[in-house]
Amino acid sequence: MSKIKVGIIGATGYAGQELVRLLLPRKDVEIVWYGSHSYVGQNYSSIYGNLFKLVDAKCLDDNLTDLSREADVIFTATPQGYLASVINNEILANSVVIDLSADFRLKDVKTYEKWYGIEHKAPQFISKAVYGLCEINRENIHGPVRLIANPGCYTTTSILTLYPLVKNHLIDPETIVIDAKSGTSGAGRGNKTANLYCEVNESIKPYGVATHRHTPEIEEQLGYAYDIYDQNMTNERMARNLCETGEPGGHPFTLNFTPHLVPMNRGILATCYAKLKDGVTADRIRQCYEDCYRDEYFIRLLPAGKFPETRWVEGSNFVDIGFTVDERTGRVIACGALDNVVKGAAGQAVQNMNLLFGCGETEGLTMPPMFP
Amino acid sequence: MSKIKVGIIGATGYAGQELVRLLLPRKDVEIVWYGSHSYVGQNYSSIYGNLFKLVDAKCLDDNLTDLSREADVIFTATPQGYLASVINNEILANSVVIDLSADFRLKDVKTYEKWYGIEHKAPQFISKAVYGLCEINRENIHGPVRLIANPGCYTTTSILTLYPLVKNHLIDPETIVIDAKSGTSGAGRGNKTANLYCEVNESIKPYGVATHRHTPEIEEQLGYAYDIYDQNMTNERMARNLCETGEPGGHPFTLNFTPHLVPMNRGILATCYAKLKDGVTADRIRQCYEDCYRDEYFIRLLPAGKFPETRWVEGSNFVDIGFTVDERTGRVIACGALDNVVKGAAGQAVQNMNLLFGCGETEGLTMPPMFP
Amino acid sequence: MSKIKVGIIGATGYAGQELVRLLLPRKDVEIVWYGSHSYVGQNYSSIYGNLFKLVDAKCLDDNLTDLSREADVIFTATPQGYLASVINNEILANSVVIDLSADFRLKDVKTYEKWYGIEHKAPQFISKAVYGLCEINRENIHGPVRLIANPGCYTTTSILTLYPLVKNHLIDPETIVIDAKSGTSGAGRGNKTANLYCEVNESIKPYGVATHRHTPEIEEQLGYAYDIYDQNMTNERMARNLCETGEPGGHPFTLNFTPHLVPMNRGILATCYAKLKDGVTADRIRQCYEDCYRDEYFIRLLPAGKFPETRWVEGSNFVDIGFTVDERTGRVIACGALDNVVKGAAGQAVQNMNLLFGCGETEGLTMPPMFP
Amino acid sequence: MSKIKVGIIGATGYAGQELVRLLLPRKDVEIVWYGSHSYVGQNYSSIYGNLFKLVDAKCLDDNLTDLSREADVIFTATPQGYLASVINNEILANSVVIDLSADFRLKDVKTYEKWYGIEHKAPQFISKAVYGLCEINRENIHGPVRLIANPGCYTTTSILTLYPLVKNHLIDPETIVIDAKSGTSGAGRGNKTANLYCEVNESIKPYGVATHRHTPEIEEQLGYAYDIYDQNMTNERMARNLCETGEPGGHPFTLNFTPHLVPMNRGILATCYAKLKDGVTADRIRQCYEDCYRDEYFIRLLPAGKFPETRWVEGSNFVDIGFTVDERTGRVIACGALDNVVKGAAGQAVQNMNLLFGCGETEGLTMPPMFP
Repeated sequence: MSKIKVGIIGATGYAGQELVRLLLPRKDVEIVWYGSHSYVGQNYSSIYGNLFKLVDAKCLDDNLTDLSREADVIFTATPQGYLASVINNEILANSVVIDLSADFRLKDVKTYEKWYGIEHKAPQFISKAVYGLCEINRENIHGPVRLIANPGCYTTTSILTLYPLVKNHLIDPETIVIDAKSGTSGAGRGNKTANLYCEVNESIKPYGVATHRHTPEIEEQLGYAYDIYDQNMTNERMARNLCETGEPGGHPFTLNFTPHLVPMNRGILATCYAKLKDGVTADRIRQCYEDCYRDEYFIRLLPAGKFPETRWVEGSNFVDIGFTVDERTGRVIACGALDNVVKGAAGQAVQNMNLLFGCGETEGLTMPPMFP
Repeated sequence: MSKIKVGIIGATGYAGQELVRLLLPRKDVEIVWYGSHSYVGQNYSSIYGNLFKLVDAKCLDDNLTDLSREADVIFTATPQGYLASVINNEILANSVVIDLSADFRLKDVKTYEKWYGIEHKAPQFISKAVYGLCEINRENIHGPVRLIANPGCYTTTSILTLYPLVKNHLIDPETIVIDAKSGTSGAGRGNKTANLYCEVNESIKPYGVATHRHTPEIEEQLGYAYDIYDQNMTNERMARNLCETGEPGGHPFTLNFTPHLVPMNRGILATCYAKLKDGVTADRIRQCYEDCYRDEYFIRLLPAGKFPETRWVEGSNFVDIGFTVDERTGRVIACGALDNVVKGAAGQAVQNMNLLFGCGETEGLTMPPMFP
Repeated sequence: MSKIKVGIIGATGYAGQELVRLLLPRKDVEIVWYGSHSYVGQNYSSIYGNLFKLVDAKCLDDNLTDLSREADVIFTATPQGYLASVINNEILANSVVIDLSADFRLKDVKTYEKWYGIEHKAPQFISKAVYGLCEINRENIHGPVRLIANPGCYTTTSILTLYPLVKNHLIDPETIVIDAKSGTSGAGRGNKTANLYCEVNESIKPYGVATHRHTPEIEEQLGYAYDIYDQNMTNERMARNLCETGEPGGHPFTLNFTPHLVPMNRGILATCYAKLKDGVTADRIRQCYEDCYRDEYFIRLLPAGKFPETRWVEGSNFVDIGFTVDERTGRVIACGALDNVVKGAAGQAVQNMNLLFGCGETEGLTMPPMFP
Repeated sequence: MSKIKVGIIGATGYAGQELVRLLLPRKDVEIVWYGSHSYVGQNYSSIYGNLFKLVDAKCLDDNLTDLSREADVIFTATPQGYLASVINNEILANSVVIDLSADFRLKDVKTYEKWYGIEHKAPQFISKAVYGLCEINRENIHGPVRLIANPGCYTTTSILTLYPLVKNHLIDPETIVIDAKSGTSGAGRGNKTANLYCEVNESIKPYGVATHRHTPEIEEQLGYAYDIYDQNMTNERMARNLCETGEPGGHPFTLNFTPHLVPMNRGILATCYAKLKDGVTADRIRQCYEDCYRDEYFIRLLPAGKFPETRWVEGSNFVDIGFTVDERTGRVIACGALDNVVKGAAGQAVQNMNLLFGCGETEGLTMPPMFP
């Protein structure tokens, strides 16, 4: 069997490097392009010493058109707006593109431009992109798709934690509060004073309060989920319909999402709160989680009384979910945890590639979490 | 002037040791008793090497009656239930007791027994205790008081962050969610696998979800605050009344409080969410915070757009508070941060001592936070 | 092909758990026994949440004789003295034993008893054990061997870093100083105040200064290496000879070894100093390293000017080595780094198993290091 | 009494900010100038949130001549070469300058230029500078001195640890190896990828191996110490003589100094090795330490069997020293620990100011170390 030829743009960022870590051991994959903006011409392993003697290549530039002629699939782990500014039909004709940035995640270009504060340079491709949250949109991630909008780390955690509750109308959608915590690799490898060791260590802080860009992505997807209740629909088909009709999509959700920076390398924890609808019991909630996720390899529903801890998912593609019902307040507290660099970025991107190229979905992603 | 003679029971725990750090430099204080359960007879500085050459004493036992004959004030940094099991009138006749445990914080003994899972051995002393949250109950913390229930770390953060909002009826009390994060010193110095370095490091986890013992303490105090609206009352006078009448106290609050363990030594951050009542603006909220805290040395209300970070309060007695209004959801997000070992324990206890003994309230507590 | 049946005694310690992480994905291995001292009867995954849904077994006891009837190979990740107290010929007839403790590492029982402070209960098995440092003793690690003394983490780092220098008489053996630094997982999962998060975090300390038990192990192995200069020998054959003759083994080395505890989970760095013999150049040193390690998959000799960092080996079985010559002082400074839980414990044990059972030596050990 | 007027150049670096933390509480000091290169015009407390409501000033520029007209003492916490490029007689006539950079630490300008790789722009001021290691040069730090070369963090630790051994000829000077470990604040607040949280966290690395700039500073000072044996001399008088004669100073030392970066904010630990001269015992060593340091408030000689840990000095001006004799190898292992931001920078600078201005030497520096 011929190998899948992979190009990575943004290979010198943390997500890009994680793609290398995940793909390098695979016999069915060959990485043909380590694309970089800042390190062109340097040995890749001089930037990431962990890959010394494992990667012999030098960094190439970030020219997607050139790359598309050599690769079957391109991962773009690039800043917001970059892919939209260079994407074209030739690239997509040559290669599948799996985009780890946010450029094609939101169906509504106005929402994108408002929250990201930049003009969208290629809105015509939005309707071609499939939102690559495999556990929810799997049936739409297959052969003909040429562009995957790989979900963000906070959004993956939040949506997967809340999806069964929303889809089954167990909670009041107006009462959702998501308090999320992230390791520092989520902030990327750029040089900022705020990300220096001594600034992050021994502290926790909220940021992007009421303004974080992952908010509308969560709202859009949960909006679809809420609307497909009692319909024979999926999130992605809902999104398709809405692209075609031009109508704003799904139930109009607004929720609070507050991220916090935690002094650790990896891991995201989302603690989600919502008022339960009358009569909803813990048993009913558990049943809904199991109905949704019973066959999902990467989702681990914890037993009653257990809650996720990021240490238990580190280095893996797992999402751990646990919940409790607080009878006193009538709220459910549901928590999800994952490794932001794996399931929140590179692992999920590989999962999408696996689906598109007909490898087993879990191929190369079954390593147990590493502890401690 | 003669010195205030201080005894510390539980001096070998983290809060006890912090009392030593704070009181040792003071010229008006003499520590006469380093009480311990596990280290009796050992040099105190062999247990806390930071105090080598600064403290020459050996650890004594934890006999409160003996100690009360030698001390003007006793700090009890002891496990739940200990003080209640030994307190008596003789001790209180001899010494003031400032209790860092939870034994006398809740006015309703049933609530205590339910949440703490232990029988209260001295309910007759509950009405004698003043809840030592100085910024709210200052007028009741003075001369004749013999027993102070020093608030917990989570509760201090949560109550001070929400108090102006609740007292002024700016928020719907049924909608409060407190998502709190704590450094690991809050877990104490006991030997537990869960507190080992490798178990805590590189992870964040929720715990005590919907069951944490600080919940009813927050609810009780906010309940008083809500009820004193438009009355010439204080929290403590509200509590007094209720002790005398036997009626359950304050507005019956229920809220969600979820603590999380963060891989850092010190610091608590409480992120609080609530629905605003109609027409409440950010300006009105800021005005209420300023009205409440304008003269409070230890409370720093941050300018708009700034949120607390625990690094900025480390080692100090400050509480930093910041908030924003999310117009989309109609919620206020208010955050408070403090150092759990100082303002959340030892510093607040010293602040209470200062008030009771007529020292300046800030005496020995004005050191700037240490960074990094 | 039938699977290799594996039993792990001490499976609930960090090294035991790492064995599970490494062996679980292998198609040619089946773990048949999760042996524990403290958790018998409990679900293994309730102790290590990372393995939830991956391991379904309960913890069994630590009866080696029973286990030997079911397993082809037993890994003992047990306290010092345990294996020596229970080992017998029946066990070794049934199973290969790969011992991660120090019981059979030292050939001289008196040295063992002096440094470990315990009586050796099975000295008759010492001569049967092969010191399982594959890169040096590979030719002796094969079929008939029934007992492997798997080297310690500090010793693996120190010996591999210094071996080419000593074996080739490039340095004066009387001048060696090894200053080593270890992550906290090396201290194990036992409950000790000294290993609590707040005690380890934000601090570095030396320990076991001039008395650490790994010292004689390093000295013995380097002593062999020094003596085989210009002979057609190996460390292990040297050890065999000495077992047979009863003469103390190798060149009588004494060196300084000082371990330090570092606030991180994994990783060992050994910084080694020695006076160079006259005329030894950096080129000569590099040549000797290359001669020794050219074909070693797990040893990565860094280019001139580069030094090991523990982050680049985390999660892998690699040993990174770098050195420089200080012309001013006539010393070489050679540094080695590895992951103490992998190459310093479980990974090396698996490497030994691979050799003994005729799997490829690197089988299951080629995962790239994980960063960040 | 009029206050000492203080200006700080480089006030927005970590050492500069620590000067603020230490001086702000003092009633006898007024900070009149927060000098900065990058933040001119910004509120100082917007850069260091810990000082919110405590410092009201804006950042001024770094013009030393202007500043010298307003300040009695100027602290320069600036990059290497800056002070040398601007210093002049007018500045020194107006103000005392206490320099936290290395510009005037080395008496030999050639050594400076070789190790620092920059031309020294003001060699004529070298002989006017006193090396401000108070414990060794106290008698030379007084009134008429106008320029203090405040020692570096690594050098303070290393020199104070080795000084009694060298001065009393207890060790062979050719055999000294210093293996040092530092927290990350020592790397400063500049934006470098290498100092990002995820790059430093969970790793230890050596750097500047055989080339670190603090090496000649240690060698020079220990060289003086070695030469004053049996003479009625001090380090500083030795330095004076040598400035006047132009002869290279002190015993020509060469030693190995290897710094390592540790994932923690503060703290330096120096582990020092040297061969003992014949017949030198642990008792003799202890006697020499006591003779040197008996009256030194900031030096704590630990009892036998105890070694320094950086956690025990954090936030304080203490230096903890412990040692052992390894009879097997004939070496002493002596360790010193301090807080690099306090005794290794700002605290020592304040100690120098105290001496020069006739305040008590320990004024404002007696706060106990903060733990945890």
